[in-house]
Amino acid sequence: MSESKGNLAVWQGGTVWLTGLPSAGKTTIAMGLAEHLQADGHRVQVLDGDEVRAALSAELGFSKEDRDINVRRIGYVAGLLAGHGVTVLVPVIAPYALSRATVQDLHAARDLPYVEIHVATSVEICADRDVKGLYARQAAGELSGLTGADDVYEVPVDPDLRVDTQHQTVNESVRQVRALLTARGLS
Amino acid sequence: MSESKGNLAVWQGGTVWLTGLPSAGKTTIAMGLAEHLQADGHRVQVLDGDEVRAALSAELGFSKEDRDINVRRIGYVAGLLAGHGVTVLVPVIAPYALSRATVQDLHAARDLPYVEIHVATSVEICADRDVKGLYARQAAGELSGLTGADDVYEVPVDPDLRVDTQHQTVNESVRQVRALLTARGLS
Repeated sequence: MSESKGNLAVWQGGTVWLTGLPSAGKTTIAMGLAEHLQADGHRVQVLDGDEVRAALSAELGFSKEDRDINVRRIGYVAGLLAGHGVTVLVPVIAPYALSRATVQDLHAARDLPYVEIHVATSVEICADRDVKGLYARQAAGELSGLTGADDVYEVPVDPDLRVDTQHQTVNESVRQVRALLTARGLS
Repeated sequence: MSESKGNLAVWQGGTVWLTGLPSAGKTTIAMGLAEHLQADGHRVQVLDGDEVRAALSAELGFSKEDRDINVRRIGYVAGLLAGHGVTVLVPVIAPYALSRATVQDLHAARDLPYVEIHVATSVEICADRDVKGLYARQAAGELSGLTGADDVYEVPVDPDLRVDTQHQTVNESVRQVRALLTARGLS
């Protein structure tokens, strides 16, 4: 919902979580979407996984428990921002269904919109893109616990939207997410 | 600075850190101030120390290092909110000058207003109020590491404002902080 005040649209805040494997295209879609939303007067915050982990969870590793705590913390911060009218875009792997559900519940409890987007790129394509070189390092035995390679990713069973980045352009993916937000009254 | 849009004032965000001993009156002043600011159309977030610690720093204790990390995390979240026009009130002890300076620097780097208020209640008065019963428990040997009792509190040398809660009412303290924010163009 928006309330027009002169040339300023006051949008309702909400959280858009983009879950998916490393190199699935989560951040690329989030950045493209942020640009569109900002151009239309939204307050937008992209909570980048690496930055937020450094700021809030530097002591945590990548065990199931630590990943869960990290995701909950990001969810808490997203909720604070969403509560003040910010559209929060969260391109963060969040491999466990239970962690994602916890964040969703936290938003529901505060009556804040929450949308789960599964950026559903296959592990083969992700490993081929390998934006941060993680799949190569995992294959070379230099790291372990890489989601999609040797660590679990629980595919969302019923996301609000599944984005098939393999058969459409980035712009098409961005427009697809945007259309969902519009349908939900969030843009 | 504010820009008036119909009946909606769009205020610049900023962070107001209320530092002081346990039971100094930090939260009481923050809540009173929040009420005034909200009534005037501000978006306000009070970052309660206990709540934020549970959400973001549950694994941390009360060592110097852990307190520092906790304060930095709160500072990071405050900065995110302030960047979106929220007036963030932080009634959190923050006993170390270096931690407080780090948060101030973080705001300066993003060109976000930051105000340090020292709620300067004496330890005798704080121990007498003892809102959470902490001073009594420390005196009884049931806990240790209580700021002001058996743990350090580095008194701010040059805060933006020092509030003398012992010789004025809560409302007077709230008005004093509010006047500073007005002088700084923040309300």
